[in-house]
Amino acid sequence: MTEAVANIGVVGLAVMGSNLARNLASREGNTVAIYNRSRSKTDELVENHPEAGFVPAFAYEEFAASLAKPRTAIIMVKAGAGTDAVIDALVEVFEPGDIIVDGGNALFTDTIRREKAVRETGINFVGAGISGGEEGALLGPSIMPGGSDESWVTLGPILKSIAAVAEGEPCVTHVGHDGAGHFVKMVHNGIEYADMQLIAEAYDLIRRGTGKTPAEIADVFAEWNTGELESYLIEITAEVLRQVDASTGKPLVDVILDQAGAKGTGAWTVQTALSLGVPVSGIAEATFARSLSSHPEQRAVSGDLPGPEEGLEVEDVDAFIEDVRLALYASKIVAYSQGFDEIRAGAAEYDWNIDLGAVSKIWRAGCIIRAQFLNRIADAYAEAPELPVLLAAPYFVEALGRAQGSWRRIVSTASAAGIPAPAFSSSLSYYDGLRAERLPAALVQGQRDFFGAHTYKRIDKPGTFHTLWSGDRTEIEAEDTH
Amino acid sequence: MTEAVANIGVVGLAVMGSNLARNLASREGNTVAIYNRSRSKTDELVENHPEAGFVPAFAYEEFAASLAKPRTAIIMVKAGAGTDAVIDALVEVFEPGDIIVDGGNALFTDTIRREKAVRETGINFVGAGISGGEEGALLGPSIMPGGSDESWVTLGPILKSIAAVAEGEPCVTHVGHDGAGHFVKMVHNGIEYADMQLIAEAYDLIRRGTGKTPAEIADVFAEWNTGELESYLIEITAEVLRQVDASTGKPLVDVILDQAGAKGTGAWTVQTALSLGVPVSGIAEATFARSLSSHPEQRAVSGDLPGPEEGLEVEDVDAFIEDVRLALYASKIVAYSQGFDEIRAGAAEYDWNIDLGAVSKIWRAGCIIRAQFLNRIADAYAEAPELPVLLAAPYFVEALGRAQGSWRRIVSTASAAGIPAPAFSSSLSYYDGLRAERLPAALVQGQRDFFGAHTYKRIDKPGTFHTLWSGDRTEIEAEDTH
Repeated sequence: MTEAVANIGVVGLAVMGSNLARNLASREGNTVAIYNRSRSKTDELVENHPEAGFVPAFAYEEFAASLAKPRTAIIMVKAGAGTDAVIDALVEVFEPGDIIVDGGNALFTDTIRREKAVRETGINFVGAGISGGEEGALLGPSIMPGGSDESWVTLGPILKSIAAVAEGEPCVTHVGHDGAGHFVKMVHNGIEYADMQLIAEAYDLIRRGTGKTPAEIADVFAEWNTGELESYLIEITAEVLRQVDASTGKPLVDVILDQAGAKGTGAWTVQTALSLGVPVSGIAEATFARSLSSHPEQRAVSGDLPGPEEGLEVEDVDAFIEDVRLALYASKIVAYSQGFDEIRAGAAEYDWNIDLGAVSKIWRAGCIIRAQFLNRIADAYAEAPELPVLLAAPYFVEALGRAQGSWRRIVSTASAAGIPAPAFSSSLSYYDGLRAERLPAALVQGQRDFFGAHTYKRIDKPGTFHTLWSGDRTEIEAEDTH
Repeated sequence: MTEAVANIGVVGLAVMGSNLARNLASREGNTVAIYNRSRSKTDELVENHPEAGFVPAFAYEEFAASLAKPRTAIIMVKAGAGTDAVIDALVEVFEPGDIIVDGGNALFTDTIRREKAVRETGINFVGAGISGGEEGALLGPSIMPGGSDESWVTLGPILKSIAAVAEGEPCVTHVGHDGAGHFVKMVHNGIEYADMQLIAEAYDLIRRGTGKTPAEIADVFAEWNTGELESYLIEITAEVLRQVDASTGKPLVDVILDQAGAKGTGAWTVQTALSLGVPVSGIAEATFARSLSSHPEQRAVSGDLPGPEEGLEVEDVDAFIEDVRLALYASKIVAYSQGFDEIRAGAAEYDWNIDLGAVSKIWRAGCIIRAQFLNRIADAYAEAPELPVLLAAPYFVEALGRAQGSWRRIVSTASAAGIPAPAFSSSLSYYDGLRAERLPAALVQGQRDFFGAHTYKRIDKPGTFHTLWSGDRTEIEAEDTH
């Protein structure tokens, strides 16, 4: 009979799963049971990593028997139907009080559904977002678990043992119940899309505006990485831009096909925001920029669309680069502000008690959007937990005030020169929309009332009104049909 | 026993339903059976409109008995669970070959589901988008029916009898099978969002740039309505801007609360586009602009965010207004191009054979986005039915070439002056993205390969590649993980 010697198990031993299993095994106190649908991956992992002391299992019964109670297992399989199959199998062999963790990139509504179904068996189900890619999984990811308080008692110490560490604090927190963890991971990825697009626009502007080579622009990013933009994405951008393609001798970025792929979490973030009524325009523009790039047949027939007669000719290169830096910083503040706005709205909608400051802290290391900057977000929420919108926090107001002149110059310049900067310009529009004393939304309400009798409210008295547009054009009080 | 005297029935007699029933009854050859859940609405309609010769029914059995075969009924109830309840009731009393039409604003995926379920009974189910608001329903809407070819044989003549007429042609066509009609109606509404937002931005820029009063700006719109911008929305904008509030003596647009409502079809359009990988940035920005406006608590804390020191001071008012007009026209072309791109992608995804030119023609009258401009779209698709993207059609290339200088000036000016113009600027970014020879998407691919081993393709040879970023940085051929 198999002895229950492991305190944690991993199901699914592709790169992410095996790296996470190795990470777990490397931490004091953990003994790791492993299982994979095909035996070869399990054998391989045991053979290549004798130091890990893995407890291999080749059937779910055996896997369950190898785990001490409460049994705790992390599923690391591709999100989708495969996840449901593994959950079903584990539910068969687990007992009430045990814990099943889905560490994949599940859509949070699937996690809510699964948690509800599994809970009926008395077993705990935890959807946990795990960010940091392969390297993060091995050395320390940022982890965003949802699920019940009961599961967190057992799971917390285990996840803390493997998470990245930022300023002495492990990058994991109990985000909230059921789907809260995967929700926050989804928004993390959406912010990542925006951040990457903003960096891409900054690179494109510098390249087209100054004629600098990718290697020279790598130096610019490396320099930026020593200041307020310091972040993993800025750091690796410098690395990518510096890379020379061996077969052609050209910069690698010039031989990579300029059609960006996507795995769908950016789209999920925007789709969810639309349902919640949260304007995440920066994330949306970043997602659309990728899909635009991936339609070669459309781009092929659009190459002759008329552009400006004169391209961009920058006179003061250093001043231009500093403008781009500040435009990037300001747009990044907007992207994060919009992302946190979505988390705030999601928490309200799904009744999750999410500590926004704690979320920003667990993103400081391990994950793709890790950045110094996240400390400022934590500070903002520490100071004002009920802040209606992040960019109104004093620190960001100061930063935006310092950056906005540059930001406006860059968006103006890009528009005039025919250089696409959708994320820069949409974040500026959002910023100017938010601070506008009066928006032309009043005209939109007038139009809606005209053609659809959708009614409107007034600034000077309560109630809901309708103008009899096709009658005598007097105003009547109306039922609210919104 | 009730005699089967009616050739068409209407279920649901709120404003839209009763107007549609009156429209049907007014056309030669139609006898209209009517049914409503509460009896009072039915009695009222019969009493107020004796000229219609309605055949009232007070139970579904009676309603079915009053209809000649194949029985044909249009459901006009609020989209949602109510629709399912009425369908279930009609299926009980109808027979194979009969036709149930849902004329509400259903989500097209609901229509696909319902069509499939109803088809199993041998009854035809048709989801039909109906646009034009209350007035359109009464006098002639634009109608977008999906459903089977069989149903179209009976339904076609009836719908043609009540549709709006544009240049002698009724504004109805059999869009495609199952959910195609509601899909196209959804995109129609998405385009409507974009069109309204663009008009609102044009108004805001003119007002803030020239200090003209709403009444004076109404004159500008009225003038525009005589040229290439001629459309219902431009026309009613002039009407709304000219309206004076009786209680204050102020322009009505200045007493309407500037928080725009939405009923969700804009969000659906964008959510669907994200699933299809179609960049509909103009519709997205319009939808987000409404949600931004509707967060007073965020706007309240954002009023002090720093803006430019100098506002907009226009010297040549006429030239500025002409720039705004052309920026509006160019942005509108982008919005329609994006919308038709979504229909093209939806047709491919759901295997609908949609004639894009026919769609543009049925929008020329009856619906909210009716415009002269739609003839140009029909021409473009007549000339090149497989056009990958609408704005590359010769007519629009010419128009965009004529407009782009103004468009760039307006976006630059708005950015510099702190006036939000999210739809103007995002459509310009889209335009410049589409015509770019090379996009920084290549850098995004490099970043994705760096942190997630997502691989990339090359411009100079087939295959999928990965650089060993954490190894010796050589490039290897890799499996495509996109």
